[in-house]
Amino acid sequence: MNYPNKKKSFQKEVNKANLGMTLESDIDATNRYYLDSGIAVIHKKPTPIQVVNVSYPARNKAKITEAYYKTPSTTDYNGVFKGKYIDFDAKETNSTTSFPLKNIHPHQISHLTSVEKQNGIAFFIIHFKPYNEYYILPIHLLMPLWENQYKEKGRKSIPYAYFKDNLHQIHFSYQPRLDYLKVIQTVFNF
Amino acid sequence: MNYPNKKKSFQKEVNKANLGMTLESDIDATNRYYLDSGIAVIHKKPTPIQVVNVSYPARNKAKITEAYYKTPSTTDYNGVFKGKYIDFDAKETNSTTSFPLKNIHPHQISHLTSVEKQNGIAFFIIHFKPYNEYYILPIHLLMPLWENQYKEKGRKSIPYAYFKDNLHQIHFSYQPRLDYLKVIQTVFNF
Repeated sequence: MNYPNKKKSFQKEVNKANLGMTLESDIDATNRYYLDSGIAVIHKKPTPIQVVNVSYPARNKAKITEAYYKTPSTTDYNGVFKGKYIDFDAKETNSTTSFPLKNIHPHQISHLTSVEKQNGIAFFIIHFKPYNEYYILPIHLLMPLWENQYKEKGRKSIPYAYFKDNLHQIHFSYQPRLDYLKVIQTVFNF
Repeated sequence: MNYPNKKKSFQKEVNKANLGMTLESDIDATNRYYLDSGIAVIHKKPTPIQVVNVSYPARNKAKITEAYYKTPSTTDYNGVFKGKYIDFDAKETNSTTSFPLKNIHPHQISHLTSVEKQNGIAFFIIHFKPYNEYYILPIHLLMPLWENQYKEKGRKSIPYAYFKDNLHQIHFSYQPRLDYLKVIQTVFNF
């Protein structure tokens, strides 16, 4: 019989979440530094949740008793830096050879494309965990690679060599941990 | 005995939520129109929720069984319009004489102040329900009135006449319902 192995699949999910946490907390710490230093105002958006049931067990404290995660229609991070609108998402991979395009959701592509049309700064931060390298991937460079995957024999991933040869790296440091805005100024030339 | 009247207080909360819904849904419809027409990319941020417990009753569908509302650290709306970063919150009042400053939270003031320092466009949309009038209140005009409330005998509200005499109105129409960006271009001169 083909029962799903609940324990294994749950374990997998927990691991994935933990992987995500490090990159997320590094970006959050960087954004907090930017805010406290008056450099930029960039926040992570809350995860959208559909609330179905709320109870009021104590005064003034609503307790949500039934709710579900919704698919976001945008990216995770946005804000303002020197008058420029900044919008991005962060992804990571354990692969040593390529970044799989399935890590990126179609709604993130359409959102960042709309942002770029409004002259916003739109990109992904891609973390290659085995090398501990962080790259800035602007939406206009991603688009031809993204569209190519739907062609016959189109590649479903971006080779690591493409990152190494063509993209700017964010160097990890003490404070801020991931100074991505410094790199963004170079990449987008402002 | 002084028992809290649970039913009454619950009813009150529901009504308040409904009042808010109209303005919120008018702004959401306007933002959808902006997005579909390629005019701007502005979204409402999800309400931040602290998830405490999640169960997995069915495959692939996480059910949140315990969660609580968190206080947001930013405003409700932000995005990009002609390369400009746009950030605002929307408030309404049933008063015919003034807008009470207690409708605005201190974290919204500090957030919009930071945004303005980064040359973002930061403001409130204020709806006077009895007149069905919508005003744009930029953060730099709000600040002296906001700070004044903490002085001795300082006013805790903004008179309706101040809005009428000094601020630009958004006119309600069919599509978009509240064309606030048209007014923003005039107010912020771009």
